[in-house]
Amino acid sequence: MAELTDMTGKAFSRLRFESLLKRRFFFAEAFEIYRTSANAMADNRGLYDYGPPGCALQANIVNEWRNHFVIEENMMELDCTVITPEVVLKTSGHVDKFADWMSKDPVKGEYLRADHLIESVLEARLAKHRATDGEQKAGGLDDDTANEYGEILAKIDNYDGPALGELIKEHDIRNPNGNGEVLPPIPFNLMFKSTIGPSAAAPVYLRPETAQGQFLNFRRLLEFGQGTMPFASASIGKSYRNEISPRSGLLRVREFLMAEIEHYVDPATSKSHERFSEVEQINLPLLDKGTQLSGKTDIAIMSISEAVQMGLVENETLGYFLARVYLFLLNIGVDKSKLRFRQHLDNEMAHYAVDCWDAELLTSYGWIECVGCADRSAYDLSVHSKQTGTALVVKEPLAEPIEVEEWQATLDKKLLGPRFKKDAKKVEDAMASLEQETLENLGAELTEKAVITVPTEELTNGETSVELSGDICAIKKVTRIERLREYTPNVIEPSFGIGRILYSLLEHVYWYRPKDVARGVLSIPISVAPTKVLIVPLSNNASLQPVVKKLAARLRKLRISNNVDASSSSIGKRYARNDELGTPLGITIDFDTVSDGSITLRERDSTSQVRSSEDEIIQAVCSLVDGSESWEQVSQRLPAFTGQSQDD
Amino acid sequence: MAELTDMTGKAFSRLRFESLLKRRFFFAEAFEIYRTSANAMADNRGLYDYGPPGCALQANIVNEWRNHFVIEENMMELDCTVITPEVVLKTSGHVDKFADWMSKDPVKGEYLRADHLIESVLEARLAKHRATDGEQKAGGLDDDTANEYGEILAKIDNYDGPALGELIKEHDIRNPNGNGEVLPPIPFNLMFKSTIGPSAAAPVYLRPETAQGQFLNFRRLLEFGQGTMPFASASIGKSYRNEISPRSGLLRVREFLMAEIEHYVDPATSKSHERFSEVEQINLPLLDKGTQLSGKTDIAIMSISEAVQMGLVENETLGYFLARVYLFLLNIGVDKSKLRFRQHLDNEMAHYAVDCWDAELLTSYGWIECVGCADRSAYDLSVHSKQTGTALVVKEPLAEPIEVEEWQATLDKKLLGPRFKKDAKKVEDAMASLEQETLENLGAELTEKAVITVPTEELTNGETSVELSGDICAIKKVTRIERLREYTPNVIEPSFGIGRILYSLLEHVYWYRPKDVARGVLSIPISVAPTKVLIVPLSNNASLQPVVKKLAARLRKLRISNNVDASSSSIGKRYARNDELGTPLGITIDFDTVSDGSITLRERDSTSQVRSSEDEIIQAVCSLVDGSESWEQVSQRLPAFTGQSQDD
Repeated sequence: MAELTDMTGKAFSRLRFESLLKRRFFFAEAFEIYRTSANAMADNRGLYDYGPPGCALQANIVNEWRNHFVIEENMMELDCTVITPEVVLKTSGHVDKFADWMSKDPVKGEYLRADHLIESVLEARLAKHRATDGEQKAGGLDDDTANEYGEILAKIDNYDGPALGELIKEHDIRNPNGNGEVLPPIPFNLMFKSTIGPSAAAPVYLRPETAQGQFLNFRRLLEFGQGTMPFASASIGKSYRNEISPRSGLLRVREFLMAEIEHYVDPATSKSHERFSEVEQINLPLLDKGTQLSGKTDIAIMSISEAVQMGLVENETLGYFLARVYLFLLNIGVDKSKLRFRQHLDNEMAHYAVDCWDAELLTSYGWIECVGCADRSAYDLSVHSKQTGTALVVKEPLAEPIEVEEWQATLDKKLLGPRFKKDAKKVEDAMASLEQETLENLGAELTEKAVITVPTEELTNGETSVELSGDICAIKKVTRIERLREYTPNVIEPSFGIGRILYSLLEHVYWYRPKDVARGVLSIPISVAPTKVLIVPLSNNASLQPVVKKLAARLRKLRISNNVDASSSSIGKRYARNDELGTPLGITIDFDTVSDGSITLRERDSTSQVRSSEDEIIQAVCSLVDGSESWEQVSQRLPAFTGQSQDD
Repeated sequence: MAELTDMTGKAFSRLRFESLLKRRFFFAEAFEIYRTSANAMADNRGLYDYGPPGCALQANIVNEWRNHFVIEENMMELDCTVITPEVVLKTSGHVDKFADWMSKDPVKGEYLRADHLIESVLEARLAKHRATDGEQKAGGLDDDTANEYGEILAKIDNYDGPALGELIKEHDIRNPNGNGEVLPPIPFNLMFKSTIGPSAAAPVYLRPETAQGQFLNFRRLLEFGQGTMPFASASIGKSYRNEISPRSGLLRVREFLMAEIEHYVDPATSKSHERFSEVEQINLPLLDKGTQLSGKTDIAIMSISEAVQMGLVENETLGYFLARVYLFLLNIGVDKSKLRFRQHLDNEMAHYAVDCWDAELLTSYGWIECVGCADRSAYDLSVHSKQTGTALVVKEPLAEPIEVEEWQATLDKKLLGPRFKKDAKKVEDAMASLEQETLENLGAELTEKAVITVPTEELTNGETSVELSGDICAIKKVTRIERLREYTPNVIEPSFGIGRILYSLLEHVYWYRPKDVARGVLSIPISVAPTKVLIVPLSNNASLQPVVKKLAARLRKLRISNNVDASSSSIGKRYARNDELGTPLGITIDFDTVSDGSITLRERDSTSQVRSSEDEIIQAVCSLVDGSESWEQVSQRLPAFTGQSQDD
């Protein structure tokens, strides 16, 4: 794999990058002060706190997300409860199927996620193989084996538990910590469990996704939208997954912020999307299923309309959302060259999905799934509807009523009770549950033999079928007029992991100035930058203080977040600190400000400066923040500041 | 108690109000479709989902909160993890003390919160007494008993578990459901418990407040703020309390959004606050401790500066926050006449608080605590510091170094090891942990008797003290120069229950037009209204559609949330629906719009309308939304629309 480079083309140093994030408190391991003490904290990994810049960046990303998706498309936003009763997640399949495969090292007492164990061991062997370049016998991997490993890794997500167990046996995969053998993989459910209420009898889970709450409110949402289809609901909130072995910082955590859209669409019309024409020319980097199964990872760049026409992406609706996701990620500052859409392999998909494309971002940890776009079909609405007996369907008046011919069975109620007594209800239910095709066959049989046998639930005499003769039972073809069309919508779900996006974005915008390797710069776009403006008084002289206060208050009133740094450090140091915080603009107040009212505005990435009156500068700040002007435009319009360079 | 009235002075009907909230999907019980089925949902009360208008209102309230507190005062916002290891909450006292008193009805198998049980039974008896007005013997409550009940209710929050048990016995309080006797109250811990990691050995809780995460990050926050004091951190996020018996809709729930501020202040200077002068003239409605203990609930209205001077409110810092909370609540639309600040009684306070004032809002459920302003002193920082061995203190350079005289003990290290062997460390620790006063006494004793006895941890010989003679031990008075002052800050904590505020606000802004009793109006201020503008085309005629689309897109670009209602209902009905959603502005597009470009703007509360060009109307919408103009100003400036009244 080619070496990862930063936006200026220099090698990316994760060490320096992470040191910056920690130093500037973007985030930190939760309960940090407890981790160094004797308190038992071994299994509390995968939990992070966001500090002020991380928290503001997260809030701004969420805000952009809300504008880009919810407000732009009039989605119905919900805030649903995290605590979820067991029956809901039993129905959705999560209690039985939302699990990862886990292998135990019985000697060390460690639990290892099976696919990650195989990945890390094979990758380590391959790395050793490449390093020795076939010259040494030690480490001895022949080229065929190396190729085999490469193919396994390309489709690692396609193996189920037993297959992972086979790989572990076949390739003698052991726990890297101590080299002990591990037990065959068993499934480990990823949901956190608790109980609710004082009786402790009611089991609940923390939701593993926000989706279920949205599905359960389908009827209310449809009514709120006055019946219009298609429509989308959306939700932003925390979800929880009890990962077997969290790692990679923010990329695999146990508590995380999600933003999910559920787009409900008539399966008869999902092939087309009303606003597809707005995005059809957008080129996307795609890595489809077939390419991966052939053991390759080549990306094809093509317009989304081409991808849909070729059948690579199943329909316009899914295609529309892929393009919208792409635009969103670029808007908030993701590096276009470190973004791809990868299609899920069949065994990799969640139990509810029929097709899925992930937006993946390239980081120093490899390609990371940051957005999943899944076609969940009618799976969830159907299972909840069945379990609750509540119709989760759309009813649409037909343009023209249609005649429907169908087979109908009737029972003579007067004879039914006396003849079947306690079993009467079961016989009735058995008849009502018969499919059209069965009814047609039974109808013919009844005409022919005057008696039919119908399967039932277990009856009082222990039988599981009943004989019905023509005196009590009739089966006829009838015609009825249908005025409504009824259907269960399909659901297209773009699902965003905000923490993963935030971390990957930070890697993408990190670089350093050649003259100052130890300090970094975060070129976060102004729209999502944690703080928009830094205000620095040249000195602590009392005459500057009222100007600083007034300016800060004025910016606050315009709802432009700002920070004053009146510390005794040099101006250069204060700017360098804020370059690390990703603050895009800096205003310097000096003694000339007191006399002539002029102030200096500095831009983070270029470090170039302009100087003008407070009103002019504030107006420029406003248009930079709302995106109506670029720095290039501002710096052409306003006089450059040619005084002493304050970055020295 | 006087009858509760709405903002127009008419009797408040909770029935009609709640019907509106449900009809318009502000919120709904979570898992609603499961509640009607045979699924076991008995103990899953107290969980709610917010629908689109509730969710938008909540987001807007949070946004105003962030502007009013976080941005205005440069607070450091954090987003900390909900899942919290047991050791953290053991240290904070929550594992042992965060409990309510619960009485079980053994016959019904019901669990009842003891104070609520007593309240509801006594209130029912009083209501019956008042209804019969002393005329009937049945229900027989003499006036003395009635007065006694009144006094108990006024200070119900001041009884602990055993005292509640006494009340239950003395007044024969029984379960209203079945009249069964209940068992004496026992404490029930309110935290949800789970385990983390595959070994299931690590117990965790869902946080009951956001505060602990903020305290644990104290060191990083102080460093981020470059050491400046005082400063504040803030956090917005979900917290969880496993209430014994949730009731009163959104007012007592098990999962809720909190917004909390932790203001860290030097105890030596907390009496004064830098910005107190900005709020000192604000009059607050106060109900202090003394008044309540005398069995009364009279509110005193006085300026916050007077309240601080009188010692009613302990210091300027607490007073400043009470005033800021007051301004925030009025800003978002709370009714001034339904707001009071009530001081906590001594037994009512949380285990960590030394003083507390609640902002309470009057609702149809009575006065509801919506914001708590607690003085947590140095409690939390101290206990976490002790448990982790991490100093959570502020170090300030002293203006002038000071000389400190202190007693110091030294041990002769050469003799220590040989003489005490394995116990040497314990002896050293024992000496190091002695207080100044003890050292002074021991010093005198050592001079006098040449030998002292020092208590230790258990030694290898089973003893818990040791004799030390003058050859190995010396105790002397020394003088050292101190250049730093070190202190643990006090914490003032304003803590907001966003769901309670949201519900109370909705009650406050609800009314109905005399001509249409069945439909309500929610006069939510434009700053927090879920949707700002409704766009209604007069008819479904195709010529209006492009105008509607263009207008909606234009408003979206200005980030003004809007909804189009192109349904076939009459314009009046469409407006009435949006009055119930609290949409403050409505724009009508009609056939004149197509010919002359003019559009009509309607205001929700007055239903008055103006008409002008699209540009003028959009400009008016912008200034209404950003608060720079009122409707009165707009309607004086722009021509009134005197066409057909569209509200008929």
